[in-house]
Amino acid sequence: MSFPYQFSASAQAMRPSPIRELFKLIQRPGMISFAGGLPDPAIFPTREFAQCAPVLGDKGTVALQYGATEGYAPLVDLLRERMEKPLGRPIRPEEVIISSGSQQVMDMLSRVLIDPGDVIITEAPTYPGALHTFRNQGARFAVVPCDASGMIVDKLPEVIDRCRKETGKLPKLIYSIVNFSNPSGACLAAARRPLLAQIASAHGVPVLEDDPYGELRYHGEAAPTVFSSGSGGVLFASSFSKILAPGVRVAWAVGDPELIRKMAISKQGMDLCTSVVAQVLVAEYCRRGFLDAHLERIRAHYKAKADAMSEALRRRLPEGAAQWADPEGGFFFWVELAKGNARDLFQRAVDAGVAFLPGDTCYPSRDETVGEPVDGSRFARLCFTFAQPAEIDEGARRLAEALG
Amino acid sequence: MSFPYQFSASAQAMRPSPIRELFKLIQRPGMISFAGGLPDPAIFPTREFAQCAPVLGDKGTVALQYGATEGYAPLVDLLRERMEKPLGRPIRPEEVIISSGSQQVMDMLSRVLIDPGDVIITEAPTYPGALHTFRNQGARFAVVPCDASGMIVDKLPEVIDRCRKETGKLPKLIYSIVNFSNPSGACLAAARRPLLAQIASAHGVPVLEDDPYGELRYHGEAAPTVFSSGSGGVLFASSFSKILAPGVRVAWAVGDPELIRKMAISKQGMDLCTSVVAQVLVAEYCRRGFLDAHLERIRAHYKAKADAMSEALRRRLPEGAAQWADPEGGFFFWVELAKGNARDLFQRAVDAGVAFLPGDTCYPSRDETVGEPVDGSRFARLCFTFAQPAEIDEGARRLAEALG
Repeated sequence: MSFPYQFSASAQAMRPSPIRELFKLIQRPGMISFAGGLPDPAIFPTREFAQCAPVLGDKGTVALQYGATEGYAPLVDLLRERMEKPLGRPIRPEEVIISSGSQQVMDMLSRVLIDPGDVIITEAPTYPGALHTFRNQGARFAVVPCDASGMIVDKLPEVIDRCRKETGKLPKLIYSIVNFSNPSGACLAAARRPLLAQIASAHGVPVLEDDPYGELRYHGEAAPTVFSSGSGGVLFASSFSKILAPGVRVAWAVGDPELIRKMAISKQGMDLCTSVVAQVLVAEYCRRGFLDAHLERIRAHYKAKADAMSEALRRRLPEGAAQWADPEGGFFFWVELAKGNARDLFQRAVDAGVAFLPGDTCYPSRDETVGEPVDGSRFARLCFTFAQPAEIDEGARRLAEALG
Repeated sequence: MSFPYQFSASAQAMRPSPIRELFKLIQRPGMISFAGGLPDPAIFPTREFAQCAPVLGDKGTVALQYGATEGYAPLVDLLRERMEKPLGRPIRPEEVIISSGSQQVMDMLSRVLIDPGDVIITEAPTYPGALHTFRNQGARFAVVPCDASGMIVDKLPEVIDRCRKETGKLPKLIYSIVNFSNPSGACLAAARRPLLAQIASAHGVPVLEDDPYGELRYHGEAAPTVFSSGSGGVLFASSFSKILAPGVRVAWAVGDPELIRKMAISKQGMDLCTSVVAQVLVAEYCRRGFLDAHLERIRAHYKAKADAMSEALRRRLPEGAAQWADPEGGFFFWVELAKGNARDLFQRAVDAGVAFLPGDTCYPSRDETVGEPVDGSRFARLCFTFAQPAEIDEGARRLAEALG
């Protein structure tokens, strides 16, 4: 018999991440998975990373000791230097915090901003893991629909107003994945970026500009960060997960020193500090100049995979059965079915030996949404980075089979 | 001008950890610090740990990828094997979760158990970092006083009853550092352990048996774990921080599978998983047999320091000015002043060039305590592991000077 735990309200409301549940269904030999948002382990810089290990000997007394909650100072300095250009100005140390993955940036923000019932504005669709973190802290959601140019920022003022009317409070945060969004692959158009910053600032709602994929551009031109066009209130976050490797669990955020300080106090109660061993290895990896060389390699590697998926989908899927825009970077194709819904297709696809992420996981549910929910049931997220090129074509063939 | 953030109630109530504030005062050349609870970097197994680095090459595709939220399976298996003896029975995989330091065990438990205003029972005194984590989640506290044999378990039923009467609810957790407590250095007496398990179980209140120091015994005999004498409801937690190195940020908890599952759902929203790089290195370190050899070394190293502090305090402190019991293990001396309070002494000590942790930081404050608070203002926590032997004697001399 289990112990009669009296779980907290949030724990009672906690749902296992839908992704986690779905992934149990696809652990089967021969399954081709476009489902997870995983980097390709074949491109991990294993050799270069392992070459950095002597730093664990040389800097052992630092690497093995407790570290500053805000992060390992040499890594903070490397990031300040690296961020100066995209963020448009020099960054002070007190504007930076290093976190245990950018999931923790969301978690720190949740704790610092959200009281149960508070509203977070997300794009629809958005990253399911963000919904999970915000939900665990008791957040509700208001959504701004997206098009091929990302969040339809023009609709933001009415979403904010409606939220204020219905809850009596401002929303606590606007969450946007600005480049090659997970799941949609879209980039927020350059013209919308200053507008987002301006609307957020005018209404007094802070922005989390989440940018794990920005450096993975395979075509086209980058737009300036929202942070660089803003007048404060934008927290910029990025991560080593997609540009180096997720297993290090090292990410960072840059923003208002008062917010960063609160986040640090919160983080101190979470894990005291991010693994110093991991931070020292990542700093050494960057210091040796491996990161920029590796970025060249992964851009070429993933561009080929994106091209392979584009080709495979075009060639394999029945005419008129689905539509999508080829992404210019990142990890994902976001495919809209002409009919039916992606959950039903998921079942048939898994039977046919291919998996993807049903789009509905990327939207808050109706009961946790303030205002109009957006229905994403006809979308499917296909990750092209993890599967091998031959699998991409065969996976598309199986998907076509499931589409009937 | 800073952005007008609307912080959450818990963020508004958040206080910087008092330790953090105090430590700013003692960053001064020549300061001898008994204040932090830091291991001695001179004893870190830097060479052996760096020797494990080839595993990052051999297992790169695993070490650098996202990992299971519950932990890296080979490390889980190593811990299950290691825990079987102290926990008194074989441990199943679903009873284990690996965390980013044991601070995160407290944080996961906080999220899973605490609604704002809920009560946690702690020993008085207790670990200030635990108070910080629980407080960040909106907890209040009820305290059970301690003597030289740890928590006075006989008083537990009346604390639980009083809490139920005053709040209308059961307390959510009993938190105990069972061996060489931070800060008191005391061990919960063997006879009290089954009693603690029994009272907790009879009242339906779960226990967190926090045991980071248990393997650091320099004298005397170990008592059985509370977990092994309990009939469920005890979550056992320990960490590599004190037995290997805190910079890895790898700890673990063992308990009821339903609780572990909730903790994993919560952790998924915190950091997805603990640094896989760190877990793979720690597993390799254990697999090569380095841990047990290292434990022999640190026990001898810290025993000498404990003896040095015992000798120095006896020799240096003015007769009758303070009393203490020599700890049988762990990191700390807990010194009771005959008169005055430790905050005042702290100021004079810092002026004299020695720092310690004033005891009041180790107790919940009056306004967050349900029932009788305990006053710890006459205590000082002295960490003997970080300072070098010559510093220990000189630090005691300066402390004597401050004691006047």
